[in-house]
Amino acid sequence: MPGISTKGKAMPASPIRKLVPFSEEAKRKGRKVYHLNIGQPDIKTPDVALNAIKNLKDEVIEYSHSAGNESYRRKLAQYYQGININVDHTEIMVTTGGSEAISFALMSTVNPGEEVIVPEPFYANYNGFSTAAGVKVVPITSGIDSGFALPPIKEFEKVITPKTRAIIICNPNNPTGYLYSEEELRQLGEIVKKHDLYLFSDEVYREFCYDGHAHFSAMYMEGLEEHVIMMDSVSKRYSMCGARVGALVTKNRAVLDTAMKFAQARLSPPSFGQIAGEAALETPDIYFEEVYNEYMERRDYLVDALNKLPGVKCPTPGGAFYTVVHLPVDDTDIFSEWILSEFEYNNQTVMMAPASGFYSTPGLGKQEVRIAYVLKKEDLEKAVETLGEALKAYPGRLNS
Amino acid sequence: MPGISTKGKAMPASPIRKLVPFSEEAKRKGRKVYHLNIGQPDIKTPDVALNAIKNLKDEVIEYSHSAGNESYRRKLAQYYQGININVDHTEIMVTTGGSEAISFALMSTVNPGEEVIVPEPFYANYNGFSTAAGVKVVPITSGIDSGFALPPIKEFEKVITPKTRAIIICNPNNPTGYLYSEEELRQLGEIVKKHDLYLFSDEVYREFCYDGHAHFSAMYMEGLEEHVIMMDSVSKRYSMCGARVGALVTKNRAVLDTAMKFAQARLSPPSFGQIAGEAALETPDIYFEEVYNEYMERRDYLVDALNKLPGVKCPTPGGAFYTVVHLPVDDTDIFSEWILSEFEYNNQTVMMAPASGFYSTPGLGKQEVRIAYVLKKEDLEKAVETLGEALKAYPGRLNS
Repeated sequence: MPGISTKGKAMPASPIRKLVPFSEEAKRKGRKVYHLNIGQPDIKTPDVALNAIKNLKDEVIEYSHSAGNESYRRKLAQYYQGININVDHTEIMVTTGGSEAISFALMSTVNPGEEVIVPEPFYANYNGFSTAAGVKVVPITSGIDSGFALPPIKEFEKVITPKTRAIIICNPNNPTGYLYSEEELRQLGEIVKKHDLYLFSDEVYREFCYDGHAHFSAMYMEGLEEHVIMMDSVSKRYSMCGARVGALVTKNRAVLDTAMKFAQARLSPPSFGQIAGEAALETPDIYFEEVYNEYMERRDYLVDALNKLPGVKCPTPGGAFYTVVHLPVDDTDIFSEWILSEFEYNNQTVMMAPASGFYSTPGLGKQEVRIAYVLKKEDLEKAVETLGEALKAYPGRLNS
Repeated sequence: MPGISTKGKAMPASPIRKLVPFSEEAKRKGRKVYHLNIGQPDIKTPDVALNAIKNLKDEVIEYSHSAGNESYRRKLAQYYQGININVDHTEIMVTTGGSEAISFALMSTVNPGEEVIVPEPFYANYNGFSTAAGVKVVPITSGIDSGFALPPIKEFEKVITPKTRAIIICNPNNPTGYLYSEEELRQLGEIVKKHDLYLFSDEVYREFCYDGHAHFSAMYMEGLEEHVIMMDSVSKRYSMCGARVGALVTKNRAVLDTAMKFAQARLSPPSFGQIAGEAALETPDIYFEEVYNEYMERRDYLVDALNKLPGVKCPTPGGAFYTVVHLPVDDTDIFSEWILSEFEYNNQTVMMAPASGFYSTPGLGKQEVRIAYVLKKEDLEKAVETLGEALKAYPGRLNS
């Protein structure tokens, strides 16, 4: 029997996957499971996007241009110009989700065996895309005590080697919800320029910035046109994760030309999703106001309620819809399994993502979980109450 | 300015891409360009598939399961069982087009630096996926004189090395239209078993088999359950290339588990396309009969008309909707550019795919083009007439 490739063996499994059987078992027992583990919002997709699909006129669902439909790219360029990102449609490649934009960026610029620096905790799939591209992820640790702010620049300098090719940030951040400041971006810009690196900026949560803070895009920085590659997606902005439509955006023509070769090999991004994505650009402002208010209410409730639980510590995230929370337990991998398999409170339980999966440094994140506030406030209330009771009952509780 | 990766540089450009500016220029001059170069059928997508999209009920376009919606996989399994491919839904992974199925199969089983054997001429994007995976393509040449039949097994044996991991076939074939016989498949099965290789079988043109010949799937062969990985797609079967929905199908659990890790990293295949793909399984038989008759008529006309042109040789393809044709010219790369940029007949011209892009062995295919019969017969007639006139006028014509 022929075997599996070393790359296949090295591919990390999803950090949440091993919990799925326990969640399914809990449901089979009739328990209500509150899913705080996923980045799938419960927010309705905008009507303009759904209606464009329902009013489909095409009779043949053809391949699109490998870089995406030109009409869509032109409107996307207008959207970016409207938020002061100065790009035209030739500087945008439509991708199959933000996922593919990350893969294309890595494969186009980083050789197998070379390195990318990523502040941890980070979006776990960066590990997967890096493994697939043969690229080594070098973490820089950010901590809960600073609310997961960007680590000091000297920490980056310490790990830069001749093999370093890029720094990857996600802003606002998944999993921490941290919103990078203009000052932090400019520090990154300097180091990127000094060491002639790429800055991959994953900005898929751009619209989710709270407390009056504006989003500062990596694309705003002058003099870094050849260095910055922005990754974007319709998934979170319009709550249509299943459309699988993202974008790779850069002023660097050599990167665009190279990514185009990968894009042509896979022919085209999804046509239906592009129709929905193009229409979604007409989403009225009121939609975003309602979504914003909804997430603010959830966040404020959640952070406050979690911090009231003894031994629990939750920074206030400035963006996205995640927060990484310290729990007074021995090991959140064990706790997250226990709460699904051994615990129930009023026939309810909770699924969370153990944070160890978001760290690259072994042993980190053992007292942390990522919680996504993608549930209605009433459900968040029940979930937090259940978590509080679980922490009282858990045999591995730490008295810290 | 940071550079491009070696992999990015090595990625092959599309063999047709360099002709696109000449085609656009011809159109700007007001010329009608007959596109014989592409695999985008003009056939209507089935109404059942389009109606499923138009009647969309979902309010949130969510991620699907990373392996695809279970309801879709269950119905796909029924479809396969209906054509005697004995698989259940757990042996099917829905992918983002057939393209992703090929990538996942390669990355899951072949190490960077290892080799896959592919009969040439072959689908040019196999080169792209192989380069992206760091895998070396080793060609075995099939020739126009045998109608591009499978090369003798001893040719395979000659190039098998300790680094060989798989043989890739496309059946019916793109670009040649050749339909492999059961006997050819069984020969491949023996060699695959003897040398413990994988057999990747790209069967996306399965429904396009002519002259009463049945398709013999690689999945039919007993004792090869751990060796065969089938790639499939809705693109050609239902003329919905833009849906970007394919499938990786295998009985090999280790391959499925490994491919699942790649699938989870990219989250999910497109949701809209899966809705259309699931509905398309209800396409009435009359649709396929009409499509079959249409392609048969086109093929019979095209092969006959091409063989009547002096010095032109066109085998009769047994499947798909392509044929690789010998032209009496010095170099089809030059001729294909010349006919677009320098030639017109009644203000018409023709775009074809030079066959050199489908060969891996340097220098081969210089007198061949791939012609796709994806145009109406009236247009094919005009295209062939134009090609005939062009061959008379072309300065690089060979008197062979």
